[in-house]
This record gives sequence, structure tokens and C-alpha cells, in this order.
Amino acid sequence: MIAETPKPPYYAVIFTSTRTEVVENYKEMNEAIEEAVKDADGFLGVEACREEVGISVSYWKDLESIRKWKNNPLHSLAKEKGKSAWFATFKTRIAKVEMDYDFL
Amino acid sequence: MIAETPKPPYYAVIFTSTRTEVVENYKEMNEAIEEAVKDADGFLGVEACREEVGISVSYWKDLESIRKWKNNPLHSLAKEKGKSAWFATFKTRIAKVEMDYDFL
Repeated sequence: MIAETPKPPYYAVIFTSTRTEVVENYKEMNEAIEEAVKDADGFLGVEACREEVGISVSYWKDLESIRKWKNNPLHSLAKEKGKSAWFATFKTRIAKVEMDYDFL
Repeated sequence: MIAETPKPPYYAVIFTSTRTEVVENYKEMNEAIEEAVKDADGFLGVEACREEVGISVSYWKDLESIRKWKNNPLHSLAKEKGKSAWFATFKTRIAKVEMDYDFL
């Protein structure tokens, strides 16, 4: 669903990836991460889908919240496994949301 | 595929939507827009997927490029039809990409 974010400014972490054929533990880790991030300081919401490419956009109060989540042990483990097993290519972009519109 | 964007800063337009059941002309318009945007001034690339929610992240050189594309006649028509027929809900966020990483 579309994340209900507050009035800008806030931050977006745009994570784009393509998968390998390795499926072991991927779904389980995804679910664990989805649960854990809900309790992260400054987490505002997330939107995600996957076809040829997967996109996950998570929204955050500020850069400090993103830094703290970056160092979360479960998230660190997920990134390590992601690099070594699950993702063929990926890119992370950190962006400051300046404006948003329900209609543009 | 993952867009090959230049070194930050640049801009991202994050468009998130859920669909109605109306399919008439949707695919055709999507393809026409995908072709047209490639020629837009300042367009840097796009990533998109759709499951329960659809996410399209387009990347732009600056806010001026985004403003110009906003006023493109084909894009305006697509937005009008999107609001009235194809999308149940949607949100557009304009964000300045400050950092990016191939590995984080």
C-alpha cells in the first residue's frame, strides 16, 4: 500500500535490486526485516514491489534514523547475505523528499 | 533494470499507485510515455515494477527538467486519464538524491 508519510521534508531510501536464483532464506529474511523495521526510530513507512527489478522505498524522519537502521544487527546480516547470495545487482539511493502530492 | 545515474546530486520522482480494474488504453499509454520520456531534457533513467502497489522512480538532472516534463502534453494526458480511470490511489514525491551506493 501507499505509505502515509508526514508533510515533507523527510527522507527516502530507494533500494533497487535484481535477484539471483538463490531462494534459500530470502523470504524468511524479508519477513523478519519487514517486522523489525516497524520498530526502528524514525521509520515512517515503506512501499515495495518486484518484477524484473525490485524496488523498495522506505521513508525516514531524518538521516540519523537511516544511520541507526543501517547499523541494526539483523539489517546488517540481511545486507551481507544479500550481497553474497540473493542479489545479482543493487543500488541504494538516499534522497530528501522536498515535495509530495496526492495529485500532480 | 537499475538506472545508471550520474554522481549525486540529482532528483528522483517517486510515483506510487494502486490500480483500478480499468485496463482500456493503459498498457498503450505506458509504452508511449516510456518512449517519450527518453527524449525529455534532463531525464536520467527510470526503474519500475508493480505488484499490489506499483512504483516508478524516474531520475532527473534538476527540478527544472521535472517541471518541463510535468507540462509535456502526452504526460498531461496520461495524468488526466490516470486520475479519472486507471489509478485507485496514487502519490508523487519529489526528492533530491544526496548519496548513492552500489553497496551499502
